[in-house]
Formats: sequence, structure tokens, C-alpha cells
Amino acid sequence: MQKGEFSFIGDIARLFGGLPHNGFEPIGDDCTVVECGDDEVLVLSTDLLVEDVHFLRSASHPEQVAHKSLMVNLSDVAAMGAHPVATLLSLALPASVQQQWAKSFMEGYYEASKRYGVALVGGDTTASTDKIAINVVAIGRAKRDCVKRRSAARVGDAICVTGKLGTSSKGLVDIMFGDLATTAAKIHSMAQARVEEGIVLGAQRAVHAMMDISDGIASDIRHIMEQSKVGAEIDTALVPRDYDLRYALSGGEDYELLLTVERGEVEAVSERLLRTTGTPLTVIGRIIEGDELRWLESGSPIELDLQGFTHF
Amino acid sequence: MQKGEFSFIGDIARLFGGLPHNGFEPIGDDCTVVECGDDEVLVLSTDLLVEDVHFLRSASHPEQVAHKSLMVNLSDVAAMGAHPVATLLSLALPASVQQQWAKSFMEGYYEASKRYGVALVGGDTTASTDKIAINVVAIGRAKRDCVKRRSAARVGDAICVTGKLGTSSKGLVDIMFGDLATTAAKIHSMAQARVEEGIVLGAQRAVHAMMDISDGIASDIRHIMEQSKVGAEIDTALVPRDYDLRYALSGGEDYELLLTVERGEVEAVSERLLRTTGTPLTVIGRIIEGDELRWLESGSPIELDLQGFTHF
Repeated sequence: MQKGEFSFIGDIARLFGGLPHNGFEPIGDDCTVVECGDDEVLVLSTDLLVEDVHFLRSASHPEQVAHKSLMVNLSDVAAMGAHPVATLLSLALPASVQQQWAKSFMEGYYEASKRYGVALVGGDTTASTDKIAINVVAIGRAKRDCVKRRSAARVGDAICVTGKLGTSSKGLVDIMFGDLATTAAKIHSMAQARVEEGIVLGAQRAVHAMMDISDGIASDIRHIMEQSKVGAEIDTALVPRDYDLRYALSGGEDYELLLTVERGEVEAVSERLLRTTGTPLTVIGRIIEGDELRWLESGSPIELDLQGFTHF
Repeated sequence: MQKGEFSFIGDIARLFGGLPHNGFEPIGDDCTVVECGDDEVLVLSTDLLVEDVHFLRSASHPEQVAHKSLMVNLSDVAAMGAHPVATLLSLALPASVQQQWAKSFMEGYYEASKRYGVALVGGDTTASTDKIAINVVAIGRAKRDCVKRRSAARVGDAICVTGKLGTSSKGLVDIMFGDLATTAAKIHSMAQARVEEGIVLGAQRAVHAMMDISDGIASDIRHIMEQSKVGAEIDTALVPRDYDLRYALSGGEDYELLLTVERGEVEAVSERLLRTTGTPLTVIGRIIEGDELRWLESGSPIELDLQGFTHF
């Protein structure tokens, strides 16, 4: 979902709100959740990638496009604390796409699927007139009690993030300037969804709200605030990063997880995550009462005027 | 799925066949099937519609495009004998698309969703450079025992179809020639998936294999033959139709169901279908041993050289 579309999405949610839900939860999380048996749920995510909007045929290898199309969805499943099990792939290919491109794309999709142990269980292939379009649906399974939602943050929770922020966004800028060989550029091209981390964090009760960072925390934390009806305070000095703060706050596609953890349990959660996955968890702020997003720098209030990353 | 893509699909199936299935059945039916609790399954179908391949912005109302994007998927769910419960909608819209188009599209999608009682539970909206792309995923629920597969046809089964064949295809030709007001053209634009019929037929054990007719029976029966490892004999004089035989055999998008029914049970199945849904069932042939498709005309063998409908 992109910025500027929230009002359209809001209109849709209102229009369709009156229809029967048929066992599905209302829209508002990274995935939709549906009951599946007594104590399990399935979660589903979908993303549509379009040539010249999400990728350039000239600048990206087909394997990278495949990797990205899968990762954005696996990241959504991870954000729910669910285990990704399968995907559906729809592919529209213009005649100008060589067979080799399609073959390489499928090989990249296969490698990424294999890495995460997800099956390809269905899809659609069709022609298009000139541009490639790729729609991926990821399906995950979770114990009902393990599913994490944006609406579960509580006042007093620590706001945490996995890994480091902004690297992927810095890498994208490098690529746009033709610097394809930088460390950040390479990480951007093959960024990995936090699948194992999502499962570990999903299994812990002390983790309350969770989502993946797709537009940057400055924008994404607002989803947790709105859904949980709380405020938030973030200290920019605490944000884990290797590059400029702007990338770390407003950059997209890191596939890191943004979560709130019960105060007093942060150390235990963090230790378990590091021990089982090798991924660090960093506290960057706390959930407060109200509906305000307050920025601090080493404890002192500051003014920030940041917009979330807008996809090129 | 379109003709000419079978080899690509075959390559994909082989490449991904070695990955863990994670509770999903292998590719080969109108929908993928996944276990969901002790005696239920979910079925999932996905279709990608691209402007100028599946519809023309100048020739189709946005409501009709929405209708079609939903119907192709509901028809797949119906073909499995499942009850459609929800959809995911991904929409790529170029800047040249007016807000009114998007609004009308969503209204059409809402009306069709309401008619069939399906929820809209997730999706994605994004920009595109010049063409509209629409991906719909339909999700259905069924008792495990009610799910119908292409692989379940048995020698001796009657081959049956619901309704009449070729009307939608004739309507498409009318539209292509500018004849938008013919009965067939109107039916083509608002053809309805056989959702109720699919549920009724799914509940009957005497119904063995089932699929929806998307490319015309001449092409589609081969899927049942291949999956069930059987031959088939179809009598062209029995095919229910209002228009030319060519449309009825090779025309697509009728959304009628093609099924095989245990010999001796056809009358009971047919009566129940007519009584509960008002839709007639017609026997057009029978499943035979071998792997051959034989054409008859009023009982006498004929030669037919027909290709399935190729999407324009």
C-alpha cells in the first residue's frame, strides 16, 4: 500500500464494511487473518509490482525482481508472527520480454521460495501489451494465540525494531545514481524478510503489536498508533543505523520489524531473538497515552518534519 | 491461464515440484486446496487481468471490468464445489485513470461481492505507468468431502454441462463488431459465475470431476482427460446452445461448469440442480477408456479440428 492511497483504501473499507465478514478479520494489518481449525489461523498478504513503478527492467536482474516480489509478501507474513507456507504468483508478460527473462525470474523465485521453505501452489500467467506486472500472494499459518496485530500496543510498551534501519533505502538511492556496487545497494537488491524473527517474536506473549517497516518508521508507527489508539515517543539517537538518519526514519523496504514489547520483558525477548536468530532488537521509544507522535534526541524533545518514503 | 503457456506452466510445476507442499495439493485444478481444520478445506484461485489484453478501457464500463475480474475467480471456486467467502484485490492504476473510473470500478466490485456474499478482506493499490492491471484472489470454503477435482473422472461417467454454451463468446464477437446491444453481448458483459450450482453439485457424491469452462469444452475436457487419465466422447448434437456450434465448443468465458457424473445418477443430480437453482444439466457425452477425444454427431463419428478460444 502506498501513500496517497489511504483515502481510496478508506473509501473501500467503508463501502465493503457492511458485507458479511465470513470469518475474516477487518482490513488493517499486514495480512488478513482467517480461522482455520480450532486453534490455527491462515494469514494472507498480496502485493502487485508493476514495471517502471516498482522496478526497472534495465536496472534490475529478473532474479532480483523475483526476490523482491516474494520478499515484500513474506515480510507481511512475518509481521503477523506467522510461518509462511505457500505463495500464488500471477505474471503478466509483454511480448518484448525474452524467454530468458521469464526463466531467470522463475529461477530467482524458486531460490527464494526454497530458502524460506514456501511452496508455489497456484497462479496465473497472461500476456500484457508492454509492461511486466507481478502479483504475489503469500499464505502463512500461525497458532491463533501467536498472531500479532497493529492494534495490540499498550501504553508503557517499549517500541522496538529488529536489525538496522535505512540501509535498503540508502542502497536504492545508490542504485538510482548508478552506484550498483555499494554495500547498501547490494543489500537493497537482495534484502531478506525477517521470517524466522517473525515466528520467534510471534511466539512470545510479551510482544504486543507488530508490523513490518515498509515506508519508514516515521510513517509506519502511525499505523500502530491509529489501530491501538495510543501515542508514541521515539528517540532518534536510539535508532539503529549505518547511514543518514533520514534513510533510517523515512526509508522503505528494509523488511525490518517494528514492534511493541511489554515493559520489563524487553531484555528477555531481545535475548531470545538474538540467541535463536542472531538478529538484534533495539528499543527506540515507548508507547504513550494520547494520539501524538513525539520525537526526542537523546531524551530532549525535537521537531521533525518527515514524510515516509514515497515509492519512485 | 492461456493457451501457449502450458509449457511455461509445466516448467514451473517441475521446477517447484521438489519443494515441500506444506499441506497444499499439487497444481492442476481451478483452485489450490489447503487443509483447514479437521474436515474443511480452503480453496484459492487467482487471476490477473490486464488492460488491452482482457478488456479495453474504451469499450468496457468499469463496472463490467470489475464484474469480470470477480466472476473469473468465483467461477474457479464454484468449479471446486466450494463456497466463495472472500477476495483480495490488487489494483494498479495509471495517472490517466480518472477517479471516477476507480470509483465506478469499486462500486461494480461491491455489487458483485454483495450478490455472492463475499467479503473484500485485503489487497494492494499502486500506480502504473499507462495500463490498468487487476489481480483478484478468491477464497472458498468447502467440506473436505465436497471438493471436486479434475482428476476424479471415471470410465463410464456421463459428461455434463450446466446451462448453455457459447453465448458469452458470441457476445464478445458482437461487441468486437460494435454490436453492443445484442442479447449475447449483454450476457457476455455481465455473465454470472455458477456459484450456487457449484455448491449444489459439490455436495453430491455422484459428481466426480468438475471444472469451469474457460476456454471452451473442446479444450477444457482435455484437462479432465489428462488429470483423470481417461478418454472422452462428446456428441456435438447434444451440446446445449443458442448460437453457432463453433462458439459452443471453442468459446470462452461462459462460466458454465463441465462435470462428470456417475452413470445411473445423472437424472437425480440433474433434478436436484434444476430444483434448487433453476439451472439445467445436459449430458453431452461420456468418459471412455484410453486417452482419445472422440467427436460424434447424433451418434456417428465425425472429424473436428477445433482450437479452444484464444483470448484477444
